[in-house]
Amino acid sequence: MSEEKDQVTIHGLVCPRPLAHDDIVVLGHGSGGKMTQDLITRTFYPPLENPALLRGDDAAVVDLPQSGRLAISTDAHIVAPLFYPGGDIGRLSVAGTVNDLAVMGAKPLWLTASFILEEGLPMFILEKVLESMKATAHEAGVVIIAGDTKVAERGKADGIFITTSGVGVIPEGRDVGGAKAEPGDAVLLSGPVGEHGIAVLAARGELEFEADVTSDVAPLNGLIETMFKVCPSIHVLRDPTRGGVATTLNEIAKQSEVSIQIDEIAIPVTLPVMAACEMLGFDPFYVANEGKVVAIVPAEYAEAVLESMRAHPLSEQAVRIGEVSDEPAGRVLMKTAIGGTRVVDVLAGEMLPRIC
Amino acid sequence: MSEEKDQVTIHGLVCPRPLAHDDIVVLGHGSGGKMTQDLITRTFYPPLENPALLRGDDAAVVDLPQSGRLAISTDAHIVAPLFYPGGDIGRLSVAGTVNDLAVMGAKPLWLTASFILEEGLPMFILEKVLESMKATAHEAGVVIIAGDTKVAERGKADGIFITTSGVGVIPEGRDVGGAKAEPGDAVLLSGPVGEHGIAVLAARGELEFEADVTSDVAPLNGLIETMFKVCPSIHVLRDPTRGGVATTLNEIAKQSEVSIQIDEIAIPVTLPVMAACEMLGFDPFYVANEGKVVAIVPAEYAEAVLESMRAHPLSEQAVRIGEVSDEPAGRVLMKTAIGGTRVVDVLAGEMLPRIC
Repeated sequence: MSEEKDQVTIHGLVCPRPLAHDDIVVLGHGSGGKMTQDLITRTFYPPLENPALLRGDDAAVVDLPQSGRLAISTDAHIVAPLFYPGGDIGRLSVAGTVNDLAVMGAKPLWLTASFILEEGLPMFILEKVLESMKATAHEAGVVIIAGDTKVAERGKADGIFITTSGVGVIPEGRDVGGAKAEPGDAVLLSGPVGEHGIAVLAARGELEFEADVTSDVAPLNGLIETMFKVCPSIHVLRDPTRGGVATTLNEIAKQSEVSIQIDEIAIPVTLPVMAACEMLGFDPFYVANEGKVVAIVPAEYAEAVLESMRAHPLSEQAVRIGEVSDEPAGRVLMKTAIGGTRVVDVLAGEMLPRIC
Repeated sequence: MSEEKDQVTIHGLVCPRPLAHDDIVVLGHGSGGKMTQDLITRTFYPPLENPALLRGDDAAVVDLPQSGRLAISTDAHIVAPLFYPGGDIGRLSVAGTVNDLAVMGAKPLWLTASFILEEGLPMFILEKVLESMKATAHEAGVVIIAGDTKVAERGKADGIFITTSGVGVIPEGRDVGGAKAEPGDAVLLSGPVGEHGIAVLAARGELEFEADVTSDVAPLNGLIETMFKVCPSIHVLRDPTRGGVATTLNEIAKQSEVSIQIDEIAIPVTLPVMAACEMLGFDPFYVANEGKVVAIVPAEYAEAVLESMRAHPLSEQAVRIGEVSDEPAGRVLMKTAIGGTRVVDVLAGEMLPRIC
């Protein structure tokens, strides 16, 4: 909590009024009894309502898709603060799981959301998070069909943790995965790197200057569908979250047993992100994104896919950043701005904790 | 942490040796970098390995079931302590989600598991939890096909939180749900109530005496399949977890707009559970179970279903505890041991926090 000009900020959000006893989450809200039912019907149902959820059974029931394969994914979200420029844990938790499905070529259909609330959490924060989940789910065209709420004692959690899981359907004919990169393929990136990580860091007050950086957090399934229209044979898609583009490319190089060669000069970085990274000693190539996609496509499709990306509002600055080759297998190499070549490795530990 | 005869107990488990720096979870394990990859490949993959998980993509891909409908469920697990007589958070997290699917008539197929680890967590605890998840998944015949790991700073979580989500398929012809109870139906219960809640409480040292109570936590899908063989038209199934059998019956009475009438004398309670409840002022009918099922079936099937339950090791003490009638709709009434009738209501708040 920080006070400034009579305003109190909690978890990154300005508190609209003094909090009364009824305005906070207590252990009883996790009891499974009447308080839990009231919380669900008054706070969770109105923003999230849909027939499967409202049925209130132990599992949601939906019809089987007509054809294709199922993609299933899960992600826990513990970002701090809960609200930051450009996003919040609600938008992040929906977009994150939508994107994990979409990068496997799936059309995301259904999400579940499990909440771990800390005793003492102001209700207005939970309400704002749920509004954000509603808006993001609407934007992505998915429904949240099942949920769960637990409450931990004060000091045994941190505001809100949200785990979202998702189920989508991969249309027939798509065969995307980290192991599908082939020598000769082109490596595309949908836009500037590092915005999410730096925006969260700035919201924590860890920068010495005002950084004008907004998180890129967004559901990418719409963009990815437009890319598939142009190139049904996309080989690899991945959203470069924790560990940034550098880590993502390393994962792909290892899974596909190929080398990935990148042009440093091609990688878009905004000036505020670059300035923040220089101050902190970070390489923006390792900083988390939540609304970007790396695509590896057959070279003959590269220009057409890029064109389709640049026509989409989420990837107007899409670029080709490199290509795939045989050797050295499992390695990412970068042609540096000054003309040399260096290995882009995976970082050992933690640059930015609690970023997603 | 508590010391006794040179033994150190952490999260309910005796520590096998002094912990070195490498023996604990640090923030870097949640970075998405090399430490995360090492944790996943060394600690998570060996117990949980299966082809979909090992592929290491952002979402697991599986074939569509041939027919039926999909059931999808999620549950966050924050039980404290992590280990208690008869169970642990690993077994609980797998059985809990398997049961949420099974009570909708689904055959559970795939689970996802998201972990929020607290910085400082001893690795041996995580390993024991994963071994337990492996064993329980094997017992239930499900595979854990996707996962995620985040690490929160010390004091911002509590050891391990696990959110499991599950997908199952409901065979054609089954139509189970909380809204399907009909007047005339019989209400069955698979065994003694309150064992899970009291076992967890005892493990916290909240009882003044040694309670010989073991949690009933178990996957129920095998039992439920045997019940469907005898009675394909089961109306309602539900596992009475938080809030116990009393809360579960209230939920069903409201969803189905019926009255449920229970015989107090028919409800099985073991002596140690009864003794603990008397000491604590609890009604065992409201205490959580994690390996019991309430079944509401057409009266003509009641005896056959009971017989099939009693032949199953998880429900040898299955009993008929009451029946469904028209009025008063939405209410649960109990014929007491001394011959009166009382309303069984839903409790307002929390009797037992952090029980699941």
